[in-house]
Amino acid sequence: MDLLNLFKERYSVRKFSGKKIEEEKINQILEAGRLAPTAVNNQPQRIYVIKSEEALDKLKTVTPYTFNTQTAFLICYDNTISWKRPFDGMDFGYIDASIVTTQMMLEIANLGLGATWVGYFDAKVMSKTFNLPENIIPVALLPAGYPDAAPSPRHAERLAINETVKYI
Amino acid sequence: MDLLNLFKERYSVRKFSGKKIEEEKINQILEAGRLAPTAVNNQPQRIYVIKSEEALDKLKTVTPYTFNTQTAFLICYDNTISWKRPFDGMDFGYIDASIVTTQMMLEIANLGLGATWVGYFDAKVMSKTFNLPENIIPVALLPAGYPDAAPSPRHAERLAINETVKYI
Repeated sequence: MDLLNLFKERYSVRKFSGKKIEEEKINQILEAGRLAPTAVNNQPQRIYVIKSEEALDKLKTVTPYTFNTQTAFLICYDNTISWKRPFDGMDFGYIDASIVTTQMMLEIANLGLGATWVGYFDAKVMSKTFNLPENIIPVALLPAGYPDAAPSPRHAERLAINETVKYI
Repeated sequence: MDLLNLFKERYSVRKFSGKKIEEEKINQILEAGRLAPTAVNNQPQRIYVIKSEEALDKLKTVTPYTFNTQTAFLICYDNTISWKRPFDGMDFGYIDASIVTTQMMLEIANLGLGATWVGYFDAKVMSKTFNLPENIIPVALLPAGYPDAAPSPRHAERLAINETVKYI
């Protein structure tokens, strides 16, 4: 499987056509998140599929980066379930939610759909807006959809391997 | 591309054959991390490939979970480069390093190799052991290798979709 090619071709899609994501594809995206490994297999991820008109309108008040999506995935974790590293108490919920989001993001690209990983929002405002329980911590938002008919993919430049890697 | 199948078949490999990972495959694993998206494309990931005998011996003093690997990837981030969320100062380096690690972990599986995502270590001890600069924060360790000839894959059980997902 040419996975490197998927990594290379994927880009942040910021303009969607009006076409809604089919239920079957939404399920495949959710399955990608379900299959993600999490610390001690605690599976603390909690995912909100934002697709009602009311919820989409609310979302627009929380972040400017919704790109008029008709389907957004809000990936959260339950901090009563996530693993805490014994040495320093670090909450692995952020890491687990990031693994889940990465697998979902890749499945979205693999289905010919697009998304942008949005981290720019006030988590407290997000929680309040959607009335999330106190133990549910929002980590990532994936506004998703069919890429606009005439997309201009902007592949972000990456550093060379030797700029970030050391052999020891 | 049957990406869901890769997600489904991947498991935490905890026993390796003695065969070393070829340089070309190490490069492909590093390329998977290089291509990962990061917040604002800051690319704060800093990766140590632990493969000298001396470094591998040191690693064993930091975590019991090295599985006698001959090649481990230590994924860190530079906290002078990572994006900080303006609302609350949250350091996205942990998230970026997790996206990088996820893509590397998937490429490892795609190459027919195996790894386990290890989060169980004292980050301060890890830093001290490998004399990392103060601004380099270790996040994840991937001991990797060829799965043992007779592996007994332990696919972790996952919750059903409706146990972690809500439509709003």
